[in-house]
Amino acid sequence: MNYKMTTYILGKMFGVEAVVLLLPAFVSLLYRESNGYTFLLTSGILLVIYIVLGRKKPENTTIYSKDGLVIVAAAWVLWSLFGALPFYISGCIPNYVDAFFETVSGFTATGSTVITDISKVSKGMNFWRCLTLWIGGMGVLIFVMVVTSVHEKNSMHLMRAEGPGPELSKLVPKARTTAKILYGMYFALTIIQVIFLLIGGMDLYDSITHAFSTAGTGGFNNRSNSIAYYNSAYLEGVIAIFMILFGINFNLYYFLLFKKAKQVWKDEEVRIYLAVIVISTILITINIFHIYDDLFLSFRYSIFQVASMITTTGFSSTNYDIWPEFSKYILLIVGIIGSCAGSTGGGIKVARFLILLKSIKKEIGKMIHPKSVRIIKINGKKVYEETIQGVYMFIIAYVFILTISVVIISLDNLDFATSFSAVLSAMNNAGLGISKVGPTGSFSQFSILSKIVLCLDMLIGRLEIFPFLMLLSPTLWRKKF
Amino acid sequence: MNYKMTTYILGKMFGVEAVVLLLPAFVSLLYRESNGYTFLLTSGILLVIYIVLGRKKPENTTIYSKDGLVIVAAAWVLWSLFGALPFYISGCIPNYVDAFFETVSGFTATGSTVITDISKVSKGMNFWRCLTLWIGGMGVLIFVMVVTSVHEKNSMHLMRAEGPGPELSKLVPKARTTAKILYGMYFALTIIQVIFLLIGGMDLYDSITHAFSTAGTGGFNNRSNSIAYYNSAYLEGVIAIFMILFGINFNLYYFLLFKKAKQVWKDEEVRIYLAVIVISTILITINIFHIYDDLFLSFRYSIFQVASMITTTGFSSTNYDIWPEFSKYILLIVGIIGSCAGSTGGGIKVARFLILLKSIKKEIGKMIHPKSVRIIKINGKKVYEETIQGVYMFIIAYVFILTISVVIISLDNLDFATSFSAVLSAMNNAGLGISKVGPTGSFSQFSILSKIVLCLDMLIGRLEIFPFLMLLSPTLWRKKF
Repeated sequence: MNYKMTTYILGKMFGVEAVVLLLPAFVSLLYRESNGYTFLLTSGILLVIYIVLGRKKPENTTIYSKDGLVIVAAAWVLWSLFGALPFYISGCIPNYVDAFFETVSGFTATGSTVITDISKVSKGMNFWRCLTLWIGGMGVLIFVMVVTSVHEKNSMHLMRAEGPGPELSKLVPKARTTAKILYGMYFALTIIQVIFLLIGGMDLYDSITHAFSTAGTGGFNNRSNSIAYYNSAYLEGVIAIFMILFGINFNLYYFLLFKKAKQVWKDEEVRIYLAVIVISTILITINIFHIYDDLFLSFRYSIFQVASMITTTGFSSTNYDIWPEFSKYILLIVGIIGSCAGSTGGGIKVARFLILLKSIKKEIGKMIHPKSVRIIKINGKKVYEETIQGVYMFIIAYVFILTISVVIISLDNLDFATSFSAVLSAMNNAGLGISKVGPTGSFSQFSILSKIVLCLDMLIGRLEIFPFLMLLSPTLWRKKF
Repeated sequence: MNYKMTTYILGKMFGVEAVVLLLPAFVSLLYRESNGYTFLLTSGILLVIYIVLGRKKPENTTIYSKDGLVIVAAAWVLWSLFGALPFYISGCIPNYVDAFFETVSGFTATGSTVITDISKVSKGMNFWRCLTLWIGGMGVLIFVMVVTSVHEKNSMHLMRAEGPGPELSKLVPKARTTAKILYGMYFALTIIQVIFLLIGGMDLYDSITHAFSTAGTGGFNNRSNSIAYYNSAYLEGVIAIFMILFGINFNLYYFLLFKKAKQVWKDEEVRIYLAVIVISTILITINIFHIYDDLFLSFRYSIFQVASMITTTGFSSTNYDIWPEFSKYILLIVGIIGSCAGSTGGGIKVARFLILLKSIKKEIGKMIHPKSVRIIKINGKKVYEETIQGVYMFIIAYVFILTISVVIISLDNLDFATSFSAVLSAMNNAGLGISKVGPTGSFSQFSILSKIVLCLDMLIGRLEIFPFLMLLSPTLWRKKF
């Protein structure tokens, strides 16, 4: 392992976070909020660390696949540890573990909150919450790669460790260029959403923060009843459409831009993603119709919530916890399936889900015709055996971690639906569950231990399990290698 | 597919069931119960079918691996369809779907009941319930193999399709001899338990039915509050020990008999199985101590319930649904892990669990040292790649089926803990869950649709998923091959 280079890159990252914190500081200044100094203070601390660690490039700049994983996992934890300081120092969130929870929830684009009265949170603080979603949604390391000059030949390891989905396909040969293209499209889509929200009558502050929250598929906002506050079919429609758009593999937008539209429509993952949205929306609309006695309203609530859950954003436009159990479980399940690989959404990703379905079909086929050779194809291309095995291990580890987490959290003695959906929402980076962690609930009710477990689950979910599990493995720390 | 041979074997099976039904008929006669005629009537119907299908052996007696799977899946469904008739005709269970549910629950050794007032059930009917557990526990086809002369060279396909666990190891080269040895040991252990129960003051009828229920790790009995009725530490102890014994791979008893005790103590699966029991018992004892304020009583309830759940028997000695959530989830989880491969218990089996844990460890190792070659060993022997893949597919299919079943059952709008644990208990053949399907609950509250789904889950769980999934595959029925 190249410790020097690892420290150097982490140092760089501190520097970037120091600069990023100037944005909420500026917002606080704009609204003349006195607690804005906490952003500058934290920024100062980070700057000092950057100067110590991140200024002198080591001679040996080679980093290995393993280093990439360590850097990614460490970067996310460290950014969250420092990013929590403004909340804590300002007293906005008086307990440091709570502040850390909120920040992890932000950077992992989960959107679970421990804040019980959001109306008391200052504009600057809420801006910082939503900004963490926006940066974390696309990936903190990709962000750093775009704004600094991390050595070109190493960066692929970082992107691979952080990129969502079973495989990472580069758009162009150079990793940094790929990252820049992705961030460019991300930025553009966010701006377009801001414009649409402004047209709907939202003020500029709300439009920007809601666009951040939608783009990162996070779900923070400054209203205690989320999007239901606005009670506007137009705004719900705009947000629902953009949630769905941000849940699609960004590579496809690149193809669209360069007139390869055919490739986009033939993409199996997007088709399944859209099919799941359509089917779930229909099922829920039928299932909740008796509550609202209005087909359009049932449809409106249904499509919004399905979009919010499958993209793991976690906005709500009504209290769906009063819906029948069937509808609630459909919402939980679309959150597990999640959005497309290479999007900002969470969950296990539609691509993995597809590979699993095809594997089961293959297995049954093998039992009937033992001698037949069957390969798994997606978009007409053979999926590598290694990728398939990776997906299997992902699911198995996912189930293990889910189970262990639920058991630890059950020490708080909350009901099963609460504990189970809280862990699911953390691992899928969804941010919302059912029962006591539904739209009217809060994560503040959990014990310190449970909150730490949920923080780990959010990080494990965002980094797709193995980079983070590796950090916990004794083998990694046993010796230098 | 050899249709003639398949029909012939199924015909034979009807004949065997016809004979088996004479046992509860005899018990009814003994207690002069008027509804005993229903057993004779059903037996008569089966006899006619046997004469039509199972008397003339076809010329081509070759059956293929695929035929074995079809025969096994069909046999379990058919035995249950006819085995339900006495309950239905006698009016003991007035609804046929309910009667079918009870019989599937019996043959799959699940032990979930739809009977709300067990005290009204006649001795003969309850004997039949417990006998189905005993036969189903070890496997209906293995039973048929022991009592009839199914052609030797085919029988391995049947044993493989029905045998519990990721791999089937034959004790002796001939399948039928293996089956006979297994049944011999099974019979002997059952008798020993009967003796121990008699010593504890149970009458002969109760001793035999409880021993059947324990041996098959099923959990039916004739008391509305299960084993709590007796309130005897001795009886609970005997039953707990025998549950644990019946959850161990029967091959190990064979080794013990032939003085290979060393092999038994070194068996990794048994060690983990016992370790899970010990650790879970300690955790629950601590967790429930505040309820009983008595260490011995807490331990007594704890060990009994852990033994009952890990072996998926489903007896209860107290209403554990009042325990803290933590204890309840531990009970659910040991039920998922289940007992050893090659035992009468259900669940995913400790052997599979071991393979999964070792796979995760291997995967993390591979990330740290990408070039290292790691193989998975159990008991010092390399596990075949095919077996490992089979375990992965098992888990993936398990999770899919669990999820889909919970969603369908949620249409009954019961709470999450009830729906989830009901499906878990069906798939693991445990018979008991938490909340409304806990020790004081009943499966009678479910809709017809839910009951049918739970029946499928029980069969899928008992036959370890794929033989049954195959039946549902269109490819199987598309053409003769």
